[in-house]
Amino acid sequence: MENNHSTDNFELVKDWIGLIEVFTCPADAETRATLIGHMKQILFELHDFLIKNVGITEEISLKELSNDFTDTIINKFPEKKLAEVVTGVFETIAPHAVNVASPYFVGHMTAAIPFFMVHLKAIVAALNQNVVKLETSKVVSILEKQVISKIHRLIYGLSNAFYQEHVQNTETSLGSFMEGGTTANLTALWVARNTALKPKNGFRGIEKEGLFAAYKAYDIDRCVVMVSRRGHYSFRKSGGILGIGNENIISVDVDQRNKMDIDDLERCLAEINKNKRTKVIAIVGIAGTTETGTVDPLLRIAEICAREKIHFHADAAWGGPTLMSETYKHLLDGIQLADSVTIDGHKQFYMPMSCGMIYFRNPRSLDAISYHANYVNRKGSVDLGIKTLAGSREANSLILDSALKIMGTRGYGMLIEHGIELAYNFSEEIKTRENFQLITEPELNILTYRLCPKNLRDEFETAGSERIIAINDELNELNRTLQQVQREAGNSFVSRTVLEQENIFPGFPPGKIVVLRCVLMNPLTTIDVLKDILDEQEELFEAWRVGNIGGEKIRRDSDRSQVL
Amino acid sequence: MENNHSTDNFELVKDWIGLIEVFTCPADAETRATLIGHMKQILFELHDFLIKNVGITEEISLKELSNDFTDTIINKFPEKKLAEVVTGVFETIAPHAVNVASPYFVGHMTAAIPFFMVHLKAIVAALNQNVVKLETSKVVSILEKQVISKIHRLIYGLSNAFYQEHVQNTETSLGSFMEGGTTANLTALWVARNTALKPKNGFRGIEKEGLFAAYKAYDIDRCVVMVSRRGHYSFRKSGGILGIGNENIISVDVDQRNKMDIDDLERCLAEINKNKRTKVIAIVGIAGTTETGTVDPLLRIAEICAREKIHFHADAAWGGPTLMSETYKHLLDGIQLADSVTIDGHKQFYMPMSCGMIYFRNPRSLDAISYHANYVNRKGSVDLGIKTLAGSREANSLILDSALKIMGTRGYGMLIEHGIELAYNFSEEIKTRENFQLITEPELNILTYRLCPKNLRDEFETAGSERIIAINDELNELNRTLQQVQREAGNSFVSRTVLEQENIFPGFPPGKIVVLRCVLMNPLTTIDVLKDILDEQEELFEAWRVGNIGGEKIRRDSDRSQVL
Repeated sequence: MENNHSTDNFELVKDWIGLIEVFTCPADAETRATLIGHMKQILFELHDFLIKNVGITEEISLKELSNDFTDTIINKFPEKKLAEVVTGVFETIAPHAVNVASPYFVGHMTAAIPFFMVHLKAIVAALNQNVVKLETSKVVSILEKQVISKIHRLIYGLSNAFYQEHVQNTETSLGSFMEGGTTANLTALWVARNTALKPKNGFRGIEKEGLFAAYKAYDIDRCVVMVSRRGHYSFRKSGGILGIGNENIISVDVDQRNKMDIDDLERCLAEINKNKRTKVIAIVGIAGTTETGTVDPLLRIAEICAREKIHFHADAAWGGPTLMSETYKHLLDGIQLADSVTIDGHKQFYMPMSCGMIYFRNPRSLDAISYHANYVNRKGSVDLGIKTLAGSREANSLILDSALKIMGTRGYGMLIEHGIELAYNFSEEIKTRENFQLITEPELNILTYRLCPKNLRDEFETAGSERIIAINDELNELNRTLQQVQREAGNSFVSRTVLEQENIFPGFPPGKIVVLRCVLMNPLTTIDVLKDILDEQEELFEAWRVGNIGGEKIRRDSDRSQVL
Repeated sequence: MENNHSTDNFELVKDWIGLIEVFTCPADAETRATLIGHMKQILFELHDFLIKNVGITEEISLKELSNDFTDTIINKFPEKKLAEVVTGVFETIAPHAVNVASPYFVGHMTAAIPFFMVHLKAIVAALNQNVVKLETSKVVSILEKQVISKIHRLIYGLSNAFYQEHVQNTETSLGSFMEGGTTANLTALWVARNTALKPKNGFRGIEKEGLFAAYKAYDIDRCVVMVSRRGHYSFRKSGGILGIGNENIISVDVDQRNKMDIDDLERCLAEINKNKRTKVIAIVGIAGTTETGTVDPLLRIAEICAREKIHFHADAAWGGPTLMSETYKHLLDGIQLADSVTIDGHKQFYMPMSCGMIYFRNPRSLDAISYHANYVNRKGSVDLGIKTLAGSREANSLILDSALKIMGTRGYGMLIEHGIELAYNFSEEIKTRENFQLITEPELNILTYRLCPKNLRDEFETAGSERIIAINDELNELNRTLQQVQREAGNSFVSRTVLEQENIFPGFPPGKIVVLRCVLMNPLTTIDVLKDILDEQEELFEAWRVGNIGGEKIRRDSDRSQVL
């Protein structure tokens, strides 16, 4: 890296004067120029460096890398100036980071973000408002309520009168910002649990008395939540945290398209309803599953929840922003009937890590989890921290508000459309290649496929069931290795997961299938990029088959933490 | 505000080309210069603007301010360029934000942060790594493990061999980063709950089977956590979330110095131990209470927890960094015996919002809450997300790591010493003023006091108990109003809370006392600043007494949300 700022005016923070100085905005032009120089490095040189030197990820074993990070003592005296810290990022962090912004990084829900997001994050840090209370945020709390109303309206589209009543209402709340989708889903189930087991006949509610007392008061011994087999693992985690037990997050079957099987949902419900001592506190519909990007039949789930009087939670952490595309918003039809909706800002709102959000149809729902303290968040105050899981919290609403103004729903809509249409085109491309098999047709912008060499595929068609299972095992091992070898090569990155999928081939019994997974959110990713990725996979497979990739590269999965 | 960057090269994001451009780092010098110009505005002009125009907080009623934030529709088309968004921050946000960086803002645990923190946050945003998994963070996950080891060593000071074994051990974990102190305390109690109700004799553990089944398996009907009356409200919240019930977070009395009363703890324990169907899952010791900054007798609590085999959690969200001061680290003696420790990065590590951390003495403790998924966080992987409440998460460890290198323990130690010594000097100053009464002597850098005009004080000394209560009510009203009027005046900010304090005056019965609270963490806050604040309070009181502040300014507490 070239460092243009070697004449750094800053001394080490050696004494009290030096310390005071780092808390003081410098007034002189020279010092300001130096600080701006560092911002140049962060904004541009870091980016250029990643593109030029890192590709996607550098090939180095985790073990080797770890060896450089075993210093466990904090230095007593300052050892670096800001200039050196920035340089250090280029020298020790960037070369071994993951270039998630590359168009060839299509494996996870983390990708390029617009460059202006770095500016917006810097504004949030420079203002350093704490949204837990009005006294440390003032206008930002008010702005947050406005942004929340905007997203609520995008989801629910209620009347203008409704929004005018609630947008700045200090008594009600349409939702809140939080760390991520996991805490959003946790908050939704927390509210659902407390609402289902609310105070009655002298019982003061589950939040106060606890779950054991609640089950006794309600004469039950089990609460359950239903979510499809494609549900995010945060639901199991939430079940564990909330005391429901993660075994009581019931997996409903999915159909061929990976959508919740409504017949199975009805069967599960009928079975559970037989036992009066079990209570269903929520049914989850997913708008964009993590693994396959599919949308559950939200309208059908909504009908069932209304009929059974069960909290309907929609996990739209991934798919929520699809509502901004005129062309595809119909895919989420039914979400407007959900009692609560999770959306992640750091996913398809393209915000920096970490920003989750939860929305509630009923502006009083969050009352079920409100907390007060003497020194802040007093009753009747407008402090937003009264109704959030978190306490102190950064002002990410400021980022979303600005991004909405810069992008408009149309800008976000175009990104959504690009992803969905690219996924469709990619699926068509996969189908034309004889060595690949599409496993899940895309609905939103995620799809899965696998390497399935023509010879094995041909054999599959005619083989007996025992041989089919053996071939599948072989393919699993092949795809596991392929994903790993490609990641190590550092040119591109797809992720992998394991699906239980039936009827991949006629007669194939339900079984575990290792698949390659692509998440197509980066607008710079084109069909040509994806063809390159398939080409590389074919080449890697070919090299492997003829033995040009040695044992060092082809490890068993159990060893993967050693090679990364 | 002066905008030097009116010749902005950026068009609105009107079409696909425009959209692609915002995802692409500009190569030409002119565009880069424009972007850097915006960073100049954010780094320097924003700061200058706040100093010049805002003071602490602008006087505007919440209602009035809210009127400008009632737009609930997201614009379809882009309406602003980045330049306009930045300008908008100056025009609509900054004037109504809270200048938490002012030396006169001494009311909350949010204050000035070193200017380099904005650079560090920008680095985190520019890299946009997602620490939930190695595939989206690589070296940053490894760096995080190293930073965690450093802070763990600061707390526990175990052997070099211990740290070498665990610093990069993929099987163990010394702690984790999270959103804030609330989620850290929640995580600690989650681990404590799961450990107390772990699998046994066919029972598969509370996390799996849930709390109702767990209580049956353990033959109990209640779990409790003990924390002093000064405990943070996140403990009650955690009790609610975890299904224990927030009523079962038992408040232990505090002594005259606001420290947990060990005799009362023993009494509570003896009482609870009489009932074999109640289990104590954790006792919390606080290292720096939110309201008074006091430290519980951690060594005594540790002894009792060891004797009773109860999880000892130390909430050092505020006080943890005191360990970096050679002079005052002894105040936290006993913390090294805690099973878990909460520390907030955004408090006395002076990091931007939001950064909480949890540490565990036992590198296996976090196993009690581990979760896996097929597409990430597979068993045996080093993905940090396996053992965190959150899923996707930003790389705040990068900020702490850099800050430690820039500051050293000595730099942080000096900040701690400044705060503690300033608090002592301030308490002495308060004692010399006849119209003020010190309520809590500072131990760390937080103290409380109240306005107590000399005439009332003199009367207090001799009055009967009924009159004493009446005087106290009057003082409460006076201090409530004073805090509010001073906040509105916008020159300085102290917070207020309500303490139940005995023996404020001889013969004064236990009762609620409204106090003014100062948190002294800003190194730019000096004793002269604090004298100014006292002077202003005396002047405001005087103006009020002679009627120069009208009814508009002096409202009852119940109306405070109307006036901010």
